[in-house]
Amino acid sequence: MVLMQQARDSSTFNPMKLTVIIYENETMVRSRRAAFHRVEHALGLRDNMQLPHIYSGLDREGLYLEGVRRARVITSDMITHGHNHFQWLNERYQICNSSPFGMNFLMFRRTIELQGTAEQRRYWLQEVDQMRINGAYAQTELGHGTFVRGIETTATFDVDTGTFTIHSPTPTSVKYWPGGLGFSCSHAIVAARLITHGKDRGVHMFIVQIRSLDDFAPVYGVELGDVGMKMAYNGTCNGYARFHHLRVPRSSLLAAHAQVLRDGTYCQAQTKTGALPLSKRVYSTMLDTRRNIVRCVAFGLAQAATIAARYSIVREQGQLMFSDAAEGETAIVMFKSQHYRLLTLIAQSYAILFAAKDFDVKYDQLVCEQENDDHARLPFMHALSTGLKAWATTIASTGATEARKMCGGHGFVALSGLPEIEATVSATVTFEGENYVMWQQLVVYLFKQVKALCAGQNVDVEVKDYMGGVRTYINDETPASSAQGGDKANLFDGATLLLIYRERSQRLLASAYSAYRDMCGLSSAAEAWNACMMSNLSAAQAFVEYMVLESFLKWSSSSSAPGTPESQALSHLFSLFALTTITSPSLSFAAGSFLEHGLLTPDQLNGIRVHINELLACLLPDIAALTDAWDFTDSSLCSALGCKDGNVYERLLSWTRQLPANSGRAVERAWEASEGIEEFFKASRL
Amino acid sequence: MVLMQQARDSSTFNPMKLTVIIYENETMVRSRRAAFHRVEHALGLRDNMQLPHIYSGLDREGLYLEGVRRARVITSDMITHGHNHFQWLNERYQICNSSPFGMNFLMFRRTIELQGTAEQRRYWLQEVDQMRINGAYAQTELGHGTFVRGIETTATFDVDTGTFTIHSPTPTSVKYWPGGLGFSCSHAIVAARLITHGKDRGVHMFIVQIRSLDDFAPVYGVELGDVGMKMAYNGTCNGYARFHHLRVPRSSLLAAHAQVLRDGTYCQAQTKTGALPLSKRVYSTMLDTRRNIVRCVAFGLAQAATIAARYSIVREQGQLMFSDAAEGETAIVMFKSQHYRLLTLIAQSYAILFAAKDFDVKYDQLVCEQENDDHARLPFMHALSTGLKAWATTIASTGATEARKMCGGHGFVALSGLPEIEATVSATVTFEGENYVMWQQLVVYLFKQVKALCAGQNVDVEVKDYMGGVRTYINDETPASSAQGGDKANLFDGATLLLIYRERSQRLLASAYSAYRDMCGLSSAAEAWNACMMSNLSAAQAFVEYMVLESFLKWSSSSSAPGTPESQALSHLFSLFALTTITSPSLSFAAGSFLEHGLLTPDQLNGIRVHINELLACLLPDIAALTDAWDFTDSSLCSALGCKDGNVYERLLSWTRQLPANSGRAVERAWEASEGIEEFFKASRL
Repeated sequence: MVLMQQARDSSTFNPMKLTVIIYENETMVRSRRAAFHRVEHALGLRDNMQLPHIYSGLDREGLYLEGVRRARVITSDMITHGHNHFQWLNERYQICNSSPFGMNFLMFRRTIELQGTAEQRRYWLQEVDQMRINGAYAQTELGHGTFVRGIETTATFDVDTGTFTIHSPTPTSVKYWPGGLGFSCSHAIVAARLITHGKDRGVHMFIVQIRSLDDFAPVYGVELGDVGMKMAYNGTCNGYARFHHLRVPRSSLLAAHAQVLRDGTYCQAQTKTGALPLSKRVYSTMLDTRRNIVRCVAFGLAQAATIAARYSIVREQGQLMFSDAAEGETAIVMFKSQHYRLLTLIAQSYAILFAAKDFDVKYDQLVCEQENDDHARLPFMHALSTGLKAWATTIASTGATEARKMCGGHGFVALSGLPEIEATVSATVTFEGENYVMWQQLVVYLFKQVKALCAGQNVDVEVKDYMGGVRTYINDETPASSAQGGDKANLFDGATLLLIYRERSQRLLASAYSAYRDMCGLSSAAEAWNACMMSNLSAAQAFVEYMVLESFLKWSSSSSAPGTPESQALSHLFSLFALTTITSPSLSFAAGSFLEHGLLTPDQLNGIRVHINELLACLLPDIAALTDAWDFTDSSLCSALGCKDGNVYERLLSWTRQLPANSGRAVERAWEASEGIEEFFKASRL
Repeated sequence: MVLMQQARDSSTFNPMKLTVIIYENETMVRSRRAAFHRVEHALGLRDNMQLPHIYSGLDREGLYLEGVRRARVITSDMITHGHNHFQWLNERYQICNSSPFGMNFLMFRRTIELQGTAEQRRYWLQEVDQMRINGAYAQTELGHGTFVRGIETTATFDVDTGTFTIHSPTPTSVKYWPGGLGFSCSHAIVAARLITHGKDRGVHMFIVQIRSLDDFAPVYGVELGDVGMKMAYNGTCNGYARFHHLRVPRSSLLAAHAQVLRDGTYCQAQTKTGALPLSKRVYSTMLDTRRNIVRCVAFGLAQAATIAARYSIVREQGQLMFSDAAEGETAIVMFKSQHYRLLTLIAQSYAILFAAKDFDVKYDQLVCEQENDDHARLPFMHALSTGLKAWATTIASTGATEARKMCGGHGFVALSGLPEIEATVSATVTFEGENYVMWQQLVVYLFKQVKALCAGQNVDVEVKDYMGGVRTYINDETPASSAQGGDKANLFDGATLLLIYRERSQRLLASAYSAYRDMCGLSSAAEAWNACMMSNLSAAQAFVEYMVLESFLKWSSSSSAPGTPESQALSHLFSLFALTTITSPSLSFAAGSFLEHGLLTPDQLNGIRVHINELLACLLPDIAALTDAWDFTDSSLCSALGCKDGNVYERLLSWTRQLPANSGRAVERAWEASEGIEEFFKASRL
């Protein structure tokens, strides 16, 4: 605790300066703090020496019930106090999917808003808002994930009764994974193939009641259940649903864009502009979800980094190699490897955050344009969102794992809070668009733009300059690299680094595109795409890293007054991020690519390694401040290692002694079938 | 299941050919199979459509009791049938630490053997062997891990009574983490500071009874408990022990090397050779433990890869980009990214296995030499074991995570078996020597050898040639790289690749050593070491990668008859491992280092990328055979996604429906406090 105080005293800036940047403004910081205080008080989580209930060795049911208890409190708090602090992230900074009520507002309500008729919206939205129903979003099936066209559930219209029959024809068609579906939802949006007059009209959305509102038992014709324990998200009931010829009224079809008339006639709605507004609005929704995921994983990584930082500050373990044996032990934060890993992760958490903030600004602008029916920037924004989502979730997931490993054995114990954080972040690489699919969507966009430029056609304004550079490299004009700018002193300048990242990404894109184009001459486009996959992924990674670096540079230099200590710290973090991404990439599709084409000479690379050490030294005094700035409450970290006071050992021991398993029953039960130690060992009494 | 059959039919070799290599010989394969069959039968695990008990949503106590049940069966089987198949790896291929009886033979018994007097050995070893006691190895404390000198527990000798008093003076001195300590062990080896006549004699080992053999209650003066849920290993009770002035007899001190006489006199034993046999024997024990860990993680990674491979073969999801929309979905193994990731992991699992086998040969030789009092090779072997342990566990842990992520949402569910495998492997980066400490021990050895060579002194014979190369690069003679050998056609030859790895590692070592030596002129050795840490780690990584490649080359070319299909497949795996480690390293201390010093030209790098694609195509038909070869039973994988028959969906659905949580009670309990849906949402009734 003395060490923790020393670490705080060494800070060059007041962490509140960054807190205000992270949460937008002071009002928001205050309002969030008040909400956390109320909620943690209501849940009985304010005493950080008391074992959190979640760690008391709960079984599947216990974990779910604790999830319901928490979700009720945060939902009530949002209603009572009129805020949305817990809409995307709950009281533990877990993404909304972790709550049994989390899908209701985001996916369920939003789909009705987007695809319901005026009448449907009028009826259902108020049902949601007044919390008379809790809805799931049931799209994923046992055999069908990202590829929506593969969905098998059917909704067959019966002209005689004027109803749809929802049915799961095969095991693979069983809905599997939707959040809240297992135990918590009364209704669900069900994605199903619409069949009218024997004809398959493709996948449509239906709103279906799945449980009785009287006793919450499943409706006849629906089998519901939980998918069991998961690596995380056990406070909710990701579930399965098997439909057995369930009849639902004709009004169940969300019909803003396609209707089935009473006689079974299928008709698609005419739109005023004719500009496919549904798909555009669906795209916008996906953008909104993805930008929120990017922001959420910044907090997830920051949580893991905060715990690892605090633990590293107070954990004294071993000595530097070749130290005087008589000296005492050293705090592990002083070991260069730990110091390096910690600050790399901290820098990455800020990089993701600023990338999310920068995307938000662009997104708000897009929303304005779309209200004026201008959708020109949608393709670029969609592509960027896929790349950012894939990049940020990969970096955050790898980083959270690294943070946990940095805490050694203690990090492996549930009480450290790290296993849960790591697993929570880890899920994001899959959901809302599997990352390898996401990367490819970005590449498809980039290739399209290169192709257009090469054919003398229009190119999106956001990438016009950039693509000009790409064309140069495609045409084998291969100029000597302009990025490094010759001058070594300039190498660490933000603009120079950005130029290097830009040229590297342009060259990788040019080379991936050329390879693909050449391959297309030899095989089908699909085969060519597959053959070139790994270089395509490299191009996507490098493009996103360039965009992220640009956002980081912009925000680190503009969000605080120049020359202030916090601005200096952000600038060092920016440089550390830029340089460590070169020397020890967390994502390695494009490993080594900074060393090709003379982008960086071996001498410069050595210079980078030296400069990284200088940056690490500059940032060491601010490790506590840079993590304190995220303003996590002790309860939200839920970690015996990561509380703000640094009182690691007494808390870990105290929590351990409070574990119900230590009441002695487990030993008795293990022992009771035995007549002595030999029987205890042996199976004879099984 | 049709797809799975097709995948097997496409194999170029009979997987049994590799099974025999993996498990040494046919007799061993048969004996193992019989043991697994008996054990799985006794445990009721032979029906792979039945939900494994472990997944039934057990609480902390339930998981432990299931662990005891399984440990009893495998222990009985080993005794009854006289084998040791489950000594290091249990019936699920988890490392021995995962069993409540796992430490008894390995750590507890071995320490007595090593440090007990003849009389102590006579008494205690038969107690262990006849299973009259179950022992823990209690060294780690809440505040003290790898650094043994920091241990705080005291054992104070009292001349009046002739007893030791074992005491935990501080919270940080509480024993924390030892396997089996929580509920399962009757005795423990306790590492404590010996104090005689008020003088601290340093850390010694004591054998202490901690539970009554009548009712298994903790002995008076010892507080025992479990550390709670962990990411894995929940079948055992990693525990804590707090000693409160516990009196134990003078005979508790393991006294082969140091004794306390009745009057409190402390005396160290004289040895015949005077060659510090204890430390050498302790070193040998650590070597033995580490080589077993290296082997164990090969199996852990192979398990994860097997599940991911089988799932990828039968999971049809989406289409190749630019495919004809009318075509059906594609098995995900066909997507180049999945295909690449899978085979990279499979190649890594074989690389680790062959590195372990190669080390075993050297180890057996060392044991022979040591019996003749020749310990000359111990420093090299110790250094190599630290590096191999750090490298193999890092690669396996990262790889198991990757395999789990490759299975998307289904991989995140406990029923997939992957979360447990991933977490089991992940722990190995910490235990038996934290990896960052391990890497450094290797570097200390390497630096010592370079220094000796530069000073014209003797160098260990194992590294003599190698160090000659290092000296060349230190002396700035910087010859143009000899490794690439100019001829592009030769690049993919095993010997050429090995030369490239060798030169890269020599150059990194030369450069790390020079930097450290220069820095030593400016600061203390400890500070210099810390300043140069990251380049030291790079040198260690590259050295191990060179050694592993050498082992892989040797074993892949010698373990099966040349020209046979299985030999061809191993050779392709070797090349794939060598080349993907260059293009997308899983471990990135030394990222990009293959591109410095002209080791590889950009053209050669492009050639490598093309060749990787060719290798992937060659190996695709053998994905099932290469994973089937590990001969995992369905029950040992414990995975709804990874059973041999490929019947993924029916099994996943069937297991899900069998989950006890789906009996309906959870919903009732969540609902019962509510009077309706609005109450269900809100906290008012809490």
